[in-house]
This record gives sequence, structure tokens and C-alpha cells, in this order.
Amino acid sequence: MAGPAQDSFARRFEAVRAKHGPLVLGLDPAASLLRSWGLPDDADGLEAFVDVALDTAPGIVGTVKPQSAFFECHGWQGIKALQRLVSGMREAGVLVVLDVKRGDVGSTNDGYAAAYLGSEAPLGADAITVTPYLGIEAMGAFFSAALRSGSGLFVVVRSSNPEGRLLQRAVGDDGQSVEASLLRTLAERNAAACREAAAAGADERQVGPFGAVFTANHGRPENLDLAAMRGLFLAPGLGAQGASPADLAECFASCPDRVLPSASRSLLEAGPDAGRLRDAVSALGDEVRSALAG
Amino acid sequence: MAGPAQDSFARRFEAVRAKHGPLVLGLDPAASLLRSWGLPDDADGLEAFVDVALDTAPGIVGTVKPQSAFFECHGWQGIKALQRLVSGMREAGVLVVLDVKRGDVGSTNDGYAAAYLGSEAPLGADAITVTPYLGIEAMGAFFSAALRSGSGLFVVVRSSNPEGRLLQRAVGDDGQSVEASLLRTLAERNAAACREAAAAGADERQVGPFGAVFTANHGRPENLDLAAMRGLFLAPGLGAQGASPADLAECFASCPDRVLPSASRSLLEAGPDAGRLRDAVSALGDEVRSALAG
Repeated sequence: MAGPAQDSFARRFEAVRAKHGPLVLGLDPAASLLRSWGLPDDADGLEAFVDVALDTAPGIVGTVKPQSAFFECHGWQGIKALQRLVSGMREAGVLVVLDVKRGDVGSTNDGYAAAYLGSEAPLGADAITVTPYLGIEAMGAFFSAALRSGSGLFVVVRSSNPEGRLLQRAVGDDGQSVEASLLRTLAERNAAACREAAAAGADERQVGPFGAVFTANHGRPENLDLAAMRGLFLAPGLGAQGASPADLAECFASCPDRVLPSASRSLLEAGPDAGRLRDAVSALGDEVRSALAG
Repeated sequence: MAGPAQDSFARRFEAVRAKHGPLVLGLDPAASLLRSWGLPDDADGLEAFVDVALDTAPGIVGTVKPQSAFFECHGWQGIKALQRLVSGMREAGVLVVLDVKRGDVGSTNDGYAAAYLGSEAPLGADAITVTPYLGIEAMGAFFSAALRSGSGLFVVVRSSNPEGRLLQRAVGDDGQSVEASLLRTLAERNAAACREAAAAGADERQVGPFGAVFTANHGRPENLDLAAMRGLFLAPGLGAQGASPADLAECFASCPDRVLPSASRSLLEAGPDAGRLRDAVSALGDEVRSALAG
């Protein structure tokens, strides 16, 4: 079932990381951002935002992370703009991690997987974020579709905001915290995917397709073995939400080459001027790259 | 901030319940359902599904629950069909609980609230579902928008599938299960909303705007005081996913008049013939009404 190793999201990320570094440019066209760019808070403003993003991102960053909420709030026209953004970036060789945080019961996840994963999907991205409140074991549709299409999956494990700590640290019947239990399941899934790829004749992959959203905002991951997950980490909350490049380096000391640090507001505020946006991305990109180079 | 009491979602549900009973018709146009209705699995098929739903639901059911996943998988055209469904139902006097299960950090939830709550929202529904993995306290944008617009909110607390139990039963630092902790927060929010409404001169509302998704599939809610939440309960999983009307009656024995039992597949399978769909809704509606009449 696993696609050829060179087609996996982890391999594609490895390639763009070598060229542009690991920094992810978050694309959050909130009402306030559109206004600060002198754009109207409507579908036209959103299309203009997409134009700037498509003109600027390729060449300066390897990965972008559009936030679906700020497209959904413009209805179907917002989704149309998002489709143009996703396909335009991918055509230009920029990886797209679509931040949708979906997650439901199994049969409903079939619908979400059909929307966001694979070449037939209208919003087919390189990777998406998913939310495990209904149980990570209910996410079979996402796991299979990601494997089949060489896409990545980022399950929210530790979010950047303080309000998520109570739930994410809670302890289940198995004596493990919610976070630890999710990381363990991801490790098992990645191990199986890597074995399967090896059995199919591909090089055994070091990094599997199933990643975690894991912020560096809450200090060191005590008692959690991040490297053992064998997947990528999307680390939001850089800049405006709190974490510094040094926090990143400390949190991901065991697997610095598997981190996708993401910043949105702190970079977009430099726009819409392409030169200033480029400078902001380049400055933070350098900081992050050297912090994670260890 | 609270709107006039007669405009609240709880009051609107009370009115449709008196007329049609509590049953919610789930609208899940999955690929398999479209095919079984003789429709293509594309945007045209989805539009035809919406036509049948708009022709049939008004007059036979008080509330519908469209599942966003099965619209999203058709891209922007799917969202356009969903907008037509939502506005058409509301114009016909049918309440719409839009099942989107959104939930993110605070600033992103502003975007989701702008998409789904209030008269300015392109997909403004009577109520929506939200997922609390990032913390219920991060949902301020949803709480305020719901209060301001007289909309309802259903926070997923206990989902219908078995895979959610480990996380939903996990115990936090406060010694409470995730479920208990969510219900307590909802109770506090509802109490505050009711006090505010009373202070503004409205009748003190018995039922606040903040509800829970809570299934009857997992037996009696041991150690949880559902009535004390002072909100509505959306109970999915009736029929195809497992719960019977008797399970509903047992689970919600303390607040049988605050339950919105929802069935999708088991009803839609009777379509697309309007007469057979009507009969199926009417038969299950009678069962549910008498089970919850106590």
C-alpha cells in the first residue's frame, strides 16, 4: 500500500529543507491581517492575499501552512480561493500543509480524507492536520489515504495555547497521558509503514508519514520520547504565540531534523510588500535553521 | 450581550420539538448514499441530494444536521451546495445543526465563528458542533458569537464511537475526567448566560445556549449530572451506529426534554422517494418521542 519512498511527504520535506530550511510560512488571512495589508475583508481581499502569497512564497520558503478557518469564513468563495492557493503552491514546488484540524467518527473521516488527501481530492494537500478528540484509532481513513497518496498527517498532540494542557496531560485507563498515548500509537503506525515500504522493495524509510502537531511553547517534553515516534513534528507557536528558536532547539533536541517550525502573524505583518516579507522570512529562517542545526 | 430569550436556540428547539418531536434528521450525503439514491458522486449529485432534502424535510422534521465532511469533499462546489441547504432549510423554518466539529486556538476560532455563527456568516446555522481537544477555555470566540447571535453550540463530550473512550474518560490534574470537566465548564457558562439574560429583563432561561454532543451508545452516564449542565444534548448514533430509543431514555432520564437524538444512515436509506423517507422519519420520530416522554 505504501507509495514509493521518494514520493513520501517526509522525503519531499527533506528535499525542501535542504534547499530552503525547515521554516513553514503560516498563511492566516484573518480579518485584521487583510486590513493591515490594505485589503477588504471579503472574497476579493482574500483573492488578492492569495496573489501575493503565490508571487512571494516560491523561492523563499519550502513549506506553507494555510489556515482553513480564514478561508471558510468567506463561504464557498473562500474555499475557491483556498483551492487556487493550494494548487498554485504545489505547482510551484512549495509544500502545502493544510491546517484544517478535522476529526470525526470513522465513516465521516472517509469524507474528510476524500476532501484533503490524494490527487483526486479537490483540496489535496501535501499534508493536513487532524484532531484526535474522537480517538486516534477512529482515524483509519486518514492513515490509509495518507499512505496511499504519499501525504503527511499531523495529529494534534500538544497545542501551542495554554488552555489545551488540562486535557492533553490527562491520564487514561492505560496509565499514560493523552499525549504519550497518541505518540505511542503514531510510533506503531510509523514502524508498520516503514516495514511495509521496506518489504515492498523501497529503502526502509527512516521517517514515517504520521506526524504530530507539537509545540515548543510548554517547555521540554518530559517523559516523552519524541525521536521514537519516527515521524515529523509540526511546531506552531513560533513568534507571535510564544516560542523562540532556542525553545525549539531544546524541545526537539533528540530529533532536530524532523521539525517544521511554523510562524504566521510575525511574518505576515511584514507584508504585503514582497521585499519586506522576503526579508522577514529569510531572517527568521536563518535563526531557526541555525538553532536546529544544533 | 445575550439576545432576547425568545430568540435563543433552546427556545427555537422547544418550539419545533412541540410540533415535530425531538428527532434530528442527519444529512450525510456520503459517496455510498449518493450511489444508492441513483445519483452521481459529484457536485451535481450533491445538488440533487440538496433538492430532495429541501423538498422533503420541512413539515416532517423540526431539525436537520448536515455533515460538513460530505460537502467539503466536493470542494467549493460542495460548500456552495451546503450554503443553499442551510439557508433553504432555515427559510423553511427547519432548524439547522451544522456538524463541523471545528476547534483550534483562540484567534483561529474567531475565523470559524465568523464562518458558522450569526446572520453575517456565509454558513450561519442555528447551531454547530465543536471539538475541544485544544481546550474548552480556548473557545471564547464560539461562546461569545453563539450568545450574541442566539445560536447554539454543541461541544463534543462523549462521541458515539468506541475509539473515543480512552481519551474522553482520561483524568486531568483536577481529578476529574475529561467529560466531567467539560460538562462542568458548560454548566458554569450556561448559568452565567441565564443570569445575564435575567438581568437584562428577559425571563430567566431554564436552558442555556451551550450544549454537548453526548451519545447514549455507552450506557448510563455514571457520575455525571447531565441535568445540571442546563443545556441541550445532541445524541448521535441512533440507529446505524447503535443506540436504541430505550438507550436514549435511560441515558437522559434526568433531562429527557433536552435531547436532540440524531439518525442519518438508517433514515436516508429509505430515500430518495419522498414518501418512504417521510414514513421512516415518522416511524422513528414516534418511537423517540414516546421513549423520551418517559
